[in-house]
Amino acid sequence: MTTQELINQIKVKKSFLCIGLDVDLNKIPPHLLSEEDPIFAFNKAIIDATHHLAVAYKPNTAFYEAYGVKGWESLEKTIAYLNANHPEMYTIADAKRGDIGNTSKMYAQAFFEDLGFDSVTVAPYMGKDSVEPFLSFKNKHTILLALTSNAGAFDFQTQEINGKELYKQVLETSKTYENSENLMYVVGATKAEFLAEVRQIVPSSFLLVPGVGAQGGDLKSVCKYGMSPNVGLLINSSRGIIYASNNTDFAQAAAIKAKELQQQMEEILNHAG
Amino acid sequence: MTTQELINQIKVKKSFLCIGLDVDLNKIPPHLLSEEDPIFAFNKAIIDATHHLAVAYKPNTAFYEAYGVKGWESLEKTIAYLNANHPEMYTIADAKRGDIGNTSKMYAQAFFEDLGFDSVTVAPYMGKDSVEPFLSFKNKHTILLALTSNAGAFDFQTQEINGKELYKQVLETSKTYENSENLMYVVGATKAEFLAEVRQIVPSSFLLVPGVGAQGGDLKSVCKYGMSPNVGLLINSSRGIIYASNNTDFAQAAAIKAKELQQQMEEILNHAG
Repeated sequence: MTTQELINQIKVKKSFLCIGLDVDLNKIPPHLLSEEDPIFAFNKAIIDATHHLAVAYKPNTAFYEAYGVKGWESLEKTIAYLNANHPEMYTIADAKRGDIGNTSKMYAQAFFEDLGFDSVTVAPYMGKDSVEPFLSFKNKHTILLALTSNAGAFDFQTQEINGKELYKQVLETSKTYENSENLMYVVGATKAEFLAEVRQIVPSSFLLVPGVGAQGGDLKSVCKYGMSPNVGLLINSSRGIIYASNNTDFAQAAAIKAKELQQQMEEILNHAG
Repeated sequence: MTTQELINQIKVKKSFLCIGLDVDLNKIPPHLLSEEDPIFAFNKAIIDATHHLAVAYKPNTAFYEAYGVKGWESLEKTIAYLNANHPEMYTIADAKRGDIGNTSKMYAQAFFEDLGFDSVTVAPYMGKDSVEPFLSFKNKHTILLALTSNAGAFDFQTQEINGKELYKQVLETSKTYENSENLMYVVGATKAEFLAEVRQIVPSSFLLVPGVGAQGGDLKSVCKYGMSPNVGLLINSSRGIIYASNNTDFAQAAAIKAKELQQQMEEILNHAG
């Protein structure tokens, strides 16, 4: 999907919500456990109930790998279902990969070509030749970790490197990579003020913002500091939406939570426009 | 496996060789492609021919994910074969994972418990709470990326953070993590002098050293600068061994290449002892 198609979808739906499909068999409604593929059954119900309220879905691969071959099958079925039935949805493989060039290329092929995701999250530690193999795919995005929303972000990311915090150095250096127009960035919402600093370096790039809701970030301040003229934000919510209910009404409950966020977003977009 | 069991194995075999099982269907002997599971057939033959010369095997997960569910099955079969038939071998999932705590725990369970690997490689960018969930597993090792062997390592890893290169800061900070005795580190061999600097910070930790052979590092200088009193090195070779021949003699050819490295290691160990 092109960036413009994503922007168009945001305008049509008045939403920049991304729903994290982080499915834990210990947390889904027990009645689903008798299904042949409980993870896919859960995802399908969530997608069917929320696709008109969100613009993106983001399965975190850890939750699928945790169930081995069966988990990988659930991931394949989920992305195939999305691409066949809701091709307008933007899809993110939250995989946080990154390896030497040769090997990053294998990951890129797996997520972009074989599975058919629109984007994949990538860790920056190994630098240019670990990121560029992802960037070389046309109409696919590489979402680089810049500033994450966890406590450990302060171990290295906010430490000064040559007089500038590491996450800013990552933003600046990545702009010099080949096909850098295909970059987006993960920027956590735990301290919204950071978003203003991020915007000084990447004024128009899309930012994937986790940590609104369960991790404590606040939507309004994220938008205040992080929104670009083209919106430029994907706000992710996982547990707050998908585990809104543990009963047979889980999909409707998820839709209610997604609708709450979408309406807040619509208000912000109307105000901004 | 405990660190002491690994050290014992190194002494018995007079080898600290790790063989990277990075299987690419475009590179394996064509006659294997008619097998039901060509990747596993290749790995099994390589393992049977080389297990007495090496102490560790390291599949890089990218090469398995690239083949989707089938690839994941090949990975499961490979680690199950190793654990059943060669339980003395140290096993490394070269996965370079790392996510927020909750999610890292899912990865740790997948690789340590479900698949049964002895260790997994982890990227440090997300800090403490992304690494500690791996460290909490008893008799399992977390191999943290410190200084990698690719060109992109100079983008961030060797940049100074608070007056000290980032990779040194990663080494020092990680020593403060809970259960840090379960840490090993990836340190590339492209500049062996770096190993001397690494040893000043982690004098006895095991280092997994890629880049000897195909990536240009030299075994003798790696040992000169990097060996600890307990050896403390796992030298990885992938392509140089497993693709030594593209014919029906591929396993024997791999054994010849592995034997060459093992003999160099034996000489170094005799000299050091």
